[in-house]
Amino acid sequence: MNIGIIGLGLMGGSLAKAVKRYGIASKVYGFTNSGKNKKEIMDLNLVDELVDLETLKKVSDVIILSIPVDAIISMFPSFLDISDNTTIIDMGSTKEYIVKNIPLEIRKNFIAAHPMTGTEKSGPKAAIDNLYEGKTVVFCDLEENANIHVNRAFKIFQEIGMRIVVMDSRDHDVNACYISHLPHLISFSLANTVMSHQNPKEIIALAAGGFKDMSRIAKSSPRMWGDIFKQNRKNMLESIKSFEEQMNEAKKMIEDERYEELEEWMKKANTLHEIL
Amino acid sequence: MNIGIIGLGLMGGSLAKAVKRYGIASKVYGFTNSGKNKKEIMDLNLVDELVDLETLKKVSDVIILSIPVDAIISMFPSFLDISDNTTIIDMGSTKEYIVKNIPLEIRKNFIAAHPMTGTEKSGPKAAIDNLYEGKTVVFCDLEENANIHVNRAFKIFQEIGMRIVVMDSRDHDVNACYISHLPHLISFSLANTVMSHQNPKEIIALAAGGFKDMSRIAKSSPRMWGDIFKQNRKNMLESIKSFEEQMNEAKKMIEDERYEELEEWMKKANTLHEIL
Repeated sequence: MNIGIIGLGLMGGSLAKAVKRYGIASKVYGFTNSGKNKKEIMDLNLVDELVDLETLKKVSDVIILSIPVDAIISMFPSFLDISDNTTIIDMGSTKEYIVKNIPLEIRKNFIAAHPMTGTEKSGPKAAIDNLYEGKTVVFCDLEENANIHVNRAFKIFQEIGMRIVVMDSRDHDVNACYISHLPHLISFSLANTVMSHQNPKEIIALAAGGFKDMSRIAKSSPRMWGDIFKQNRKNMLESIKSFEEQMNEAKKMIEDERYEELEEWMKKANTLHEIL
Repeated sequence: MNIGIIGLGLMGGSLAKAVKRYGIASKVYGFTNSGKNKKEIMDLNLVDELVDLETLKKVSDVIILSIPVDAIISMFPSFLDISDNTTIIDMGSTKEYIVKNIPLEIRKNFIAAHPMTGTEKSGPKAAIDNLYEGKTVVFCDLEENANIHVNRAFKIFQEIGMRIVVMDSRDHDVNACYISHLPHLISFSLANTVMSHQNPKEIIALAAGGFKDMSRIAKSSPRMWGDIFKQNRKNMLESIKSFEEQMNEAKKMIEDERYEELEEWMKKANTLHEIL
């Protein structure tokens, strides 16, 4: 099986490494628009060959889209002429908007996937071994796909060591919002809170593990996350509201010096770790 | 030098390990009120001897308080009769309220310290090797201390591998608020946001590194953190306000679909990591 990967940053580059490592692909082709990335991809030896888009479409049995979610939508017209036997898998962090907009002509071929893994880094140099092993991938709305494509997608992600979860794209977007998109916005907000202070350097000089963990994903790509917040706008606004209610409840308890209630509220937060 | 440690949980237990490991103390004494902890401390062999408070005060050259910040305040009267030669060091996460309330009789002996390190765990079993090595300890308002006590405190924390920073207690409380106390409240809020959702288990099943990092410190001790939020109330309320402004700015940009501005805002957050 030949695999063509469009976008070879953190997610695509790491996938190229994984499918090579597990011997899933006879050949891995790559396509990118970015001149800078081309050089890095070659230097890092991430793919067997970088080709143009038309070539990639012809030589690949499976095409994987690991580009920002708005770029996925923009590329739809380019795939209208692909063969019935070609599988397309997108790895975007939002699913409902993408699924809704897949052109009918390629709906059977197009697998909506979201591997729940990543780091705060981006670009080809961010590609690492073992990004996918032991992690979860969500597949959405598979009832609209042809079996040949579903089977291929399962095979690839299973063989690189992922746990597969199947979910409605709307449910995915709600869950992904709370577990990933909202936490990213919070981390960006915390970073900006400190950076907006009159003396961020003095504050940051005291950073230990807690702050480093809480601000790590604030290093993530603004381009990629802008698209995600846009495509998952409705859920984002709702989850921000829930989070603001919690923050506000805590603030009020501190304001009113209701510390026993505040302790009970923190004990409730502790229970998260009974199921995490 | 004999060191007596009051409270042998994460911080005190790890300090007992450190002062033994670096051969700083000829003998390490411990005191705790908790029957359950006594057994764990003995089983873990954290101290040479568990003694009662009066004995600890007599046999220790340095007494270290590693108990919740309100408990530190409550213990002040017990130290009024200590020898001029006995050093007391508190390791609480707030400093201004503690320093303000140190009785005059022991002000020269009492070193206000805050080691900027920890984990989300608590209790004697949470004690680990290397909690302090390579981390920062803040000493506050040392001008009110006698040199003999300052020198001892420097010696102990330097020899266990810490970087020493000296700061006014008011500045400490502002900085610690932004770098530690506010992030804890945010993490508790995020955990409660998810736990208040109609289906937390389905959400949490998708948790990856980002969420794990963002919610880790939501496992912290409610008792200990209630006291910290109480003692640092004014700064907490101010920092929550700054953070809420950032969240609100982000929310408005998503609401109004001003995604280019949102990207600029995220780019600003990215700059944190140029100094972290």
